[in-house]
Amino acid sequence: MTVDGTDENNLERGIYTKDAACLRKNDRHRRSLSDLSLSRKCGVWASHFQRLFVSFIGADWIYLMILGFIMAVFSFAMDIFVDLFTEAHRWIYDLADSHVILQYLAWVAYSMFLMCFAAGFANIVSIQAAGSGIPETKTSLRGVMLQEYFTFKTLVSKFISLTCVLGSELPVGKEGPFVHVGSVCAALLSKFMSHFSSIYKNKARNEEMLTVGCAVGIGCCFAAPIGGALFSLEVTSMFFVARNYWRGFLSATFGAFIFRLLPVWNRQEDTLMALYATKYRLDFPFDLQELPIFAAMGIVCGFGGAFFVYLYGKISLFVKKQKATNSFLMKNCFLYSALVSVLISTLTFPLGFGQFMAGRLTQRDSLISFFDNRTWSNNGIVADFDNDDHLAAWKHPQANVFIILSVFVIMKFWMSALSITLPIPCGSFVPIFVIGAGFGRLIGEGLATLFPDGFNIDGHTYNIVPGAYAVIGAAALTAGVTHTISTGVIMMELTGQISYTLPILISVILANMVSQSLQPSIYDTVIRIKKLPYLPTLSWGHREKYNIYVEDFMKREVCYITLNSTYRDIIKILRSGNLKTLPLVKSAESMLLLGSVERAQLLALLTQRLQHLQEENASTMPVRYKVHFETSAKESASAHLESTKPLKSALKPSVDEEEITSVYDSGLNLKKFFCSRPDIEAMEDDPDAGDDTILQEIEEWEEQQLDEQMNFNSCKIDPAPFQLVEHTSLHKTHTMFSVLNLDYAYVTSIGRLVGVVSLKELRKAIEGCMPADGVRLRPVLSNFRDRGARGTRTETIELHQLLDHQIN
Amino acid sequence: MTVDGTDENNLERGIYTKDAACLRKNDRHRRSLSDLSLSRKCGVWASHFQRLFVSFIGADWIYLMILGFIMAVFSFAMDIFVDLFTEAHRWIYDLADSHVILQYLAWVAYSMFLMCFAAGFANIVSIQAAGSGIPETKTSLRGVMLQEYFTFKTLVSKFISLTCVLGSELPVGKEGPFVHVGSVCAALLSKFMSHFSSIYKNKARNEEMLTVGCAVGIGCCFAAPIGGALFSLEVTSMFFVARNYWRGFLSATFGAFIFRLLPVWNRQEDTLMALYATKYRLDFPFDLQELPIFAAMGIVCGFGGAFFVYLYGKISLFVKKQKATNSFLMKNCFLYSALVSVLISTLTFPLGFGQFMAGRLTQRDSLISFFDNRTWSNNGIVADFDNDDHLAAWKHPQANVFIILSVFVIMKFWMSALSITLPIPCGSFVPIFVIGAGFGRLIGEGLATLFPDGFNIDGHTYNIVPGAYAVIGAAALTAGVTHTISTGVIMMELTGQISYTLPILISVILANMVSQSLQPSIYDTVIRIKKLPYLPTLSWGHREKYNIYVEDFMKREVCYITLNSTYRDIIKILRSGNLKTLPLVKSAESMLLLGSVERAQLLALLTQRLQHLQEENASTMPVRYKVHFETSAKESASAHLESTKPLKSALKPSVDEEEITSVYDSGLNLKKFFCSRPDIEAMEDDPDAGDDTILQEIEEWEEQQLDEQMNFNSCKIDPAPFQLVEHTSLHKTHTMFSVLNLDYAYVTSIGRLVGVVSLKELRKAIEGCMPADGVRLRPVLSNFRDRGARGTRTETIELHQLLDHQIN
Repeated sequence: MTVDGTDENNLERGIYTKDAACLRKNDRHRRSLSDLSLSRKCGVWASHFQRLFVSFIGADWIYLMILGFIMAVFSFAMDIFVDLFTEAHRWIYDLADSHVILQYLAWVAYSMFLMCFAAGFANIVSIQAAGSGIPETKTSLRGVMLQEYFTFKTLVSKFISLTCVLGSELPVGKEGPFVHVGSVCAALLSKFMSHFSSIYKNKARNEEMLTVGCAVGIGCCFAAPIGGALFSLEVTSMFFVARNYWRGFLSATFGAFIFRLLPVWNRQEDTLMALYATKYRLDFPFDLQELPIFAAMGIVCGFGGAFFVYLYGKISLFVKKQKATNSFLMKNCFLYSALVSVLISTLTFPLGFGQFMAGRLTQRDSLISFFDNRTWSNNGIVADFDNDDHLAAWKHPQANVFIILSVFVIMKFWMSALSITLPIPCGSFVPIFVIGAGFGRLIGEGLATLFPDGFNIDGHTYNIVPGAYAVIGAAALTAGVTHTISTGVIMMELTGQISYTLPILISVILANMVSQSLQPSIYDTVIRIKKLPYLPTLSWGHREKYNIYVEDFMKREVCYITLNSTYRDIIKILRSGNLKTLPLVKSAESMLLLGSVERAQLLALLTQRLQHLQEENASTMPVRYKVHFETSAKESASAHLESTKPLKSALKPSVDEEEITSVYDSGLNLKKFFCSRPDIEAMEDDPDAGDDTILQEIEEWEEQQLDEQMNFNSCKIDPAPFQLVEHTSLHKTHTMFSVLNLDYAYVTSIGRLVGVVSLKELRKAIEGCMPADGVRLRPVLSNFRDRGARGTRTETIELHQLLDHQIN
Repeated sequence: MTVDGTDENNLERGIYTKDAACLRKNDRHRRSLSDLSLSRKCGVWASHFQRLFVSFIGADWIYLMILGFIMAVFSFAMDIFVDLFTEAHRWIYDLADSHVILQYLAWVAYSMFLMCFAAGFANIVSIQAAGSGIPETKTSLRGVMLQEYFTFKTLVSKFISLTCVLGSELPVGKEGPFVHVGSVCAALLSKFMSHFSSIYKNKARNEEMLTVGCAVGIGCCFAAPIGGALFSLEVTSMFFVARNYWRGFLSATFGAFIFRLLPVWNRQEDTLMALYATKYRLDFPFDLQELPIFAAMGIVCGFGGAFFVYLYGKISLFVKKQKATNSFLMKNCFLYSALVSVLISTLTFPLGFGQFMAGRLTQRDSLISFFDNRTWSNNGIVADFDNDDHLAAWKHPQANVFIILSVFVIMKFWMSALSITLPIPCGSFVPIFVIGAGFGRLIGEGLATLFPDGFNIDGHTYNIVPGAYAVIGAAALTAGVTHTISTGVIMMELTGQISYTLPILISVILANMVSQSLQPSIYDTVIRIKKLPYLPTLSWGHREKYNIYVEDFMKREVCYITLNSTYRDIIKILRSGNLKTLPLVKSAESMLLLGSVERAQLLALLTQRLQHLQEENASTMPVRYKVHFETSAKESASAHLESTKPLKSALKPSVDEEEITSVYDSGLNLKKFFCSRPDIEAMEDDPDAGDDTILQEIEEWEEQQLDEQMNFNSCKIDPAPFQLVEHTSLHKTHTMFSVLNLDYAYVTSIGRLVGVVSLKELRKAIEGCMPADGVRLRPVLSNFRDRGARGTRTETIELHQLLDHQIN
């Protein structure tokens, strides 16, 4: 046997440690059998290899590299398709150069057609593909899994629609959607891999992998693995597990590597380079005197970012209102997209207004020209770069470069805000990036004109580099809109130069400080507008978070079931709301929390009861009743089987809505059966059954059954629902909810259930201590507190306070 | 009045929102008083400004910027002092050039003197300054606050000793100690600021600030804010709160900015640049064919890193053993340091063996020469760089550059491993960095010799850049030793070039994969050797973590107190162990957990009881007894006052040990008083007291008092000690312990206390499922489980299981 103990030892110590114990056992077994026949040996070998394969497939890095590879291919393929689309656009446009109106029609119709197709496709295949997907991913990673956002259909819909949208040259980006695509791929890959290794069935692990998916998405989009890993973290997570840190990096690095390798194989490039590689001088990147200007740019970009978010919010709400009132717009989802597309492509028409805003450049071309390290303005006149197609777009006989840049920034600003409200896959990152770069270039060119001689240091003359201003402007404006710091890192990776680290970081941080104090981030705004179940962050030093306690914001009216609950009670509770889990207490008097019961469990218990009644109480039942009962019990049983699926997924709207309705209905079959008795009419039609005594008998029997105590003996309960006490601080509660991805937690006092805190209550409490619309809201009770004393208070109470609510 | 409502509104909406409500109230108040006299107006103004000052001081960014500034000044000052020391070293060395032996003595004695001073100073002022401090910071951030590591004495000791150690040119670095210095500064600054704003009294907030301190430490050390923030996070935290993310960045950025600004002001540099700015070509950084070499370097560095950690561990344990047996070495703590210093400086003596390992270069000089973008080797002979002092050191008439580089790498490897075992402040980051760079340069030079023509792409010829290999080697080896990915980012910021992102990341990740599977990181090794209370991470896909439950590893014998506990019980429990908190249950039969009581509370209750006895039972006590009693009660009361300090700090060894002993003794006074009665002897000396009846009476009364039930009514209890249930998985438990910084958690079953899990148990459980020394240990019980079934198991149980342990 060639695989000896040493080899296995190495395997065990290495990363292949998955099934080492099994392998060793297996090995020992093999040794004892070594003198058996060859055929049996082969069988043993096969099983050995199978185990090895399973552990190989189960290794994290295999999964991460596959994910990176897939995303890189996606990103590269999309770039190629988009390039083809834009080339075709230019080709058609050039073909029609005989007449301006023909050219205009070619320019506009092409965009409109692609947009309509994209909107229609997204709408028909999977409407979940619309928007950037970052808010939904964020919500899902926060614990409220939006299952329908992670399906294959959504992936297809997003990929194809996004390609068309980008091809139509609408000012939107692929970064946000790629975060979504990445997490969908991660979810689907987990599902696929679970056929080979059971480790992929673990839910917690798969949720951890979603974060990785986000990192890969950005890593592949910008070839920025570090920035991608950090951005995904800042945007999607509230808490971040250090042990998952390397996963994002590994996957994003491999993804970015493949993404940059493909153009080399494709002979488009010579070697692996940054996406927008710049070549600014390394010996003297910037002068100290420029720092205040960079800082001021950061502040202005902070205001600009906040205004962008504000504008987006206003447009969104306006469109929403219009949609609600205008049934025509609502029904024709892509009419709105087409209108916007026509408007935007009309304005960018290169022979029309487009000539004042470099309309014929794509976003990529604009970025390349902004980052160029040559100075455009020479006393306000663009230098002679006619041989450079990109730079020539910024030259106009009637307008100087400042006017064109200003028009570009202003027009793109509202166009982008408008575009991302469309029901199509679209990201706001890249357009904001382009606007920021344009703004920075404007400032840079201005300074280069004001100080044409640059700086004189130790006899050397260093000119101002307007491209660097574009880099800083892009990073700062994006930071202002997304409220992230990692945009600075993305910027550095994107340009392949890090000599501007400090100016970039300073302006990014200032932009963050300004915009965070004015507006929520673009993603939080979408979450608010779409009313997704989210939890706001506690940021920028809210001292109040330490002085508010659970008792101030918990919900005291808890819907609970007790060990003495009757079937009637249970049905009433199930009907009264749609809580996923219900607390089980010992009795209404003691309120001692035993655990929590899932809704599906209760439905199952009701079904069980039906079966039980059928078996045991057959004799006490009226005969005709029994016949009907058998059918009903069978139906319920099948419904019960369905309900054993994970409840969280079962309770999602759309896809699973039908399923749960049937479960719900079958659960209430009993109620319907017992109380409203639709079969009575059927019986009345039957001549043998039209007997008042029987009906009365049935009614009495039913009432009696309903008043019986529920049998909880075989009920599956979760004995460890998350518990808080009244004196837990808001800060701690927020931490626990964020870290442990809680939806709700029960509030107990010596084991007694006294309240419940759900995401909703927590959200209200947090918003209450944050300034909203300039007015500071505070929880009602916290006003009556002595704040000074609470500042240093520990969370202890005196025992007699606790024992005041004495356990019965 | 010039401050009108609009201004205040802006203040409120901005980051100055701290006391806005108070301000508004105050403002309203002021308006109503506006027609009062000028003097009163001034008073109001003063109070207004006081409030404004408090909110200003309480703002996070003020704190963060002050912290960054302090650390930058520290780092810059240390660099200057170290430069002075090394210049003085060279000066003395050159002064003695008349004779080789004189030169040797000057070279060695200088180093030895500085080392002895450093070791002595650290030992006398604060021994906590020894070592890198990262392991201790990590432990403290994990929840087990090592108070004595965060004092002003430690700071002074660390700063001065470290300066001397670096001045003595021992191959150690300042990075690890700076992480420690950063967190000490953060802790001290919080303490200082708490005089002005009560927000700094919040413990949770101050612990969050420690992480920031670490980030600033590295940010200022390398002028690498992004890498610093990430490195501190990877090394010190297990969990990471996204809302704290910006803090590290802001502080580290400001720190790095000031750190790089100071040399500009000092006219050492022209503008803000990277610390080791490189100027490699931007247009074609590397060829695809070089990638496999980079990857191989990563793997070799992974092995090298693991070997370094192994070597360090072996030397450490050997020294420890020697110390234990050799009392001479133990007593003369700096003899060992002096010996090592002499050994190392002898070997680096530039005229001796040092000429074969560039002995006269400092670490900084070596790094600069390694990162140089010229090729040294020209068919094995160093090119003529005589005018460059640094490069000339690598040229030797008898040995070619490969031999010198190899000797350098090998010698520095063991020297560094040896040096960081010394009881002085020292970091391992920079020496490892230098070794890695040397190794990379060796490979790079080798390739440049093998392929002198470089690559020919599209007619352009690109030579191999050996400096880039040095960059990659440095990043990979450091990653292998520290198990971090952010070393790659630090590397980019340090060199100011990012074009090697992908090669760096690939080699860093590979180095991590190799070394993590072989050895723990250097910091975890120190934690193990120093036996600090730590919690290992669950890393690299341990599937078992999902299949082990609390019931498998919890401690079932819990030390608890009940509502019916007698004074005798309490004294017995207090004497039996030194648990900081004890669980309080309703009764021994019900075991219903009411909360946890701190040890100090119990001591206070005992004291209270003494006072009570004195007041109420005066009549029932023997007269002589009473006199003694009064004194004893007073003593206890004063001890009680002391015990109201935060218990955690009170229970720390060394500084507070004395205090707690006195509290402890006074608590047991009662016991001593009641049971062993040392005063009886005193009474016996007294002729009036030598009466058997009285003694017997006293004894009976004492016994009776001891058997009385403890009065818990005024006892402060924590009603929310952290609770787990038996079915919580190891994975979840680990998450909660890491995130919430728990020391212990009680295990309950429907409110009944059934066990306790402390860091110790958790550590054992985690180590049990990780391969330790090649042998896989698994928890005893988990072997009996069906692993397949548990893989997808949810944490629910059936109610009847739960009710089997029925509540009484």
